[in-house]
Formats: sequence, C-alpha cells, structure tokens
Amino acid sequence: MKYYAYENFKKDTNRLLHELREFQPEVILGIARGGLTLCHAIAEGLNVRAVQTIRTELYDNTCKRDAVSIFGECDFNFITKVLVVDDIADSGETLDAVMRHLENKYRTIEFRSATLFYKKTSIYKPNYWINEADGWIDFFWERDF
Amino acid sequence: MKYYAYENFKKDTNRLLHELREFQPEVILGIARGGLTLCHAIAEGLNVRAVQTIRTELYDNTCKRDAVSIFGECDFNFITKVLVVDDIADSGETLDAVMRHLENKYRTIEFRSATLFYKKTSIYKPNYWINEADGWIDFFWERDF
Repeated sequence: MKYYAYENFKKDTNRLLHELREFQPEVILGIARGGLTLCHAIAEGLNVRAVQTIRTELYDNTCKRDAVSIFGECDFNFITKVLVVDDIADSGETLDAVMRHLENKYRTIEFRSATLFYKKTSIYKPNYWINEADGWIDFFWERDF
Repeated sequence: MKYYAYENFKKDTNRLLHELREFQPEVILGIARGGLTLCHAIAEGLNVRAVQTIRTELYDNTCKRDAVSIFGECDFNFITKVLVVDDIADSGETLDAVMRHLENKYRTIEFRSATLFYKKTSIYKPNYWINEADGWIDFFWERDF
C-alpha cells in the first residue's frame, strides 16, 4: 500500500491541468467522495466556477457489470463540454457506469474523464490520466483525517 | 496575504473533526468551490459517504443582503442532521443565505455549519470554526494549481 502525499498530488494535478487546457470544459463534475479534492484543484486550475458532484455506490458482491447506483442530479443547461473527475480508474466500474449514464442522458454534450491513476485491468480508460497504479493507493485524504 | 499550506489545513481539519464528532451528521454538504477540499476531508474523517454539494454566486455590487444565488438540488430523504461546510465565513453572506435557505426548505432537519476561518465582521457565525481571519487567506487550493 503506497502513501500518496499532497506533494505528489500537487505535481500530478499540475501535469493533468497542462493536458486539460485543450478541452476547456464549462463544468467540472466530481465523483464523490474520491474525486472531490482533485475536482476542486482542477476547477481552480482551469478557472471554472461551475462545479457539480455526483455520488455512486458500487455493489461488489455481484459479477455483472452495471451494479453501480448513481445519486445526484446534474444541471447542464446550455452546456457543451463537461469534464468528469475521479481519483482512480481501478476496476473502472464506477467511471464506466457514470460515463455511459451521462452520454445516454445528455446526447449533445461532450464528456471527457480525468483521473490521477489508471489500472491496466480497468474496464474503462479515462481520456486523461497521469499514473499507472499497480497496487492499492493510500490517498492522503483517506489517511490524514 | 497569508499562504495557507496543506500542513496547516491537515492540522486544523483534525481539530475541527475532533469537535464535529459529537454532531454525527448523515450528510456533508459542501459549498463549491471553496468548501470542496474541506468537505472531502471531513467526510473521510467522519466516515460519511453521503456527500452533496451546492454552488453559490455572490453579487458584490449591491448593498442589500441576500444577493446570493444558490445552485444545485439537495436530496435529504430520511435525513435528520446535515453538516454544511465552507472554507471561510468572510462577509458571511454566502453561509447566511445558504443556511436560511436550507432551514426554510427542510424544516425537520438540523443543519450545522463548519469552516476553517471566521472573520469577526461576518454577518454569520458558523457553529464550528478553527481560526479567526484578519486578512485575506491564500488557500493552497487557490495557489498551488
């Protein structure tokens, strides 16, 4: 289990921001809880005030895809580009379900996704990611409080 | 302008968590953008999965109170206690408007508020706060990204 410190987060998020500037999203949508701190930092870095969040629950004890419940309503009036933010694409179930849900519901909006970590075994690959994860990440927001 | 580093945030948030444990909220409601990182840390520290956010816009160029627009719908079914989180009660206009809005709309729910900073000149005093602010705070999430 590798401790992921704030200083690593700061460096990685700035690398992510460098890549994200080409997309210029109008809304940053954070997936709670894991994506919240990154969502805040990206919104500040891209100077986007419109931040929204959704929450998911993943049911582990089933083999079928899609055992993800999504909570929270989005408000995308007059919006064309949305960046979805989470800390990690681990199994990828959460991001896969969220992206398919959003793309089905808001067909005229372009959605892209960004994470700090991506596992090769994930069923979903984010559009933007920084590190490949090979084990469990002990994020500072899980350890420090 | 005083730089508020992650290490200060970590120490202060843990002091806040120590006080917050008596309240045991079922939902943490973060005010975006400023309250998002604190909201995440508090939700982790209190082990609360139900995180929601709202966003406000404050219109400075007016003298009357209440020139605050609130965006985002909350889902408080079967909820009795909610903690509202922001980084600072500065003028206090935002928190004052948010708390009155919530208390009017959800009359059976107990709402309490928590911030890292509180200014004596604020029109609203949070239930929980750690530092008195006497100038502009340069939060690490505003500076580092």
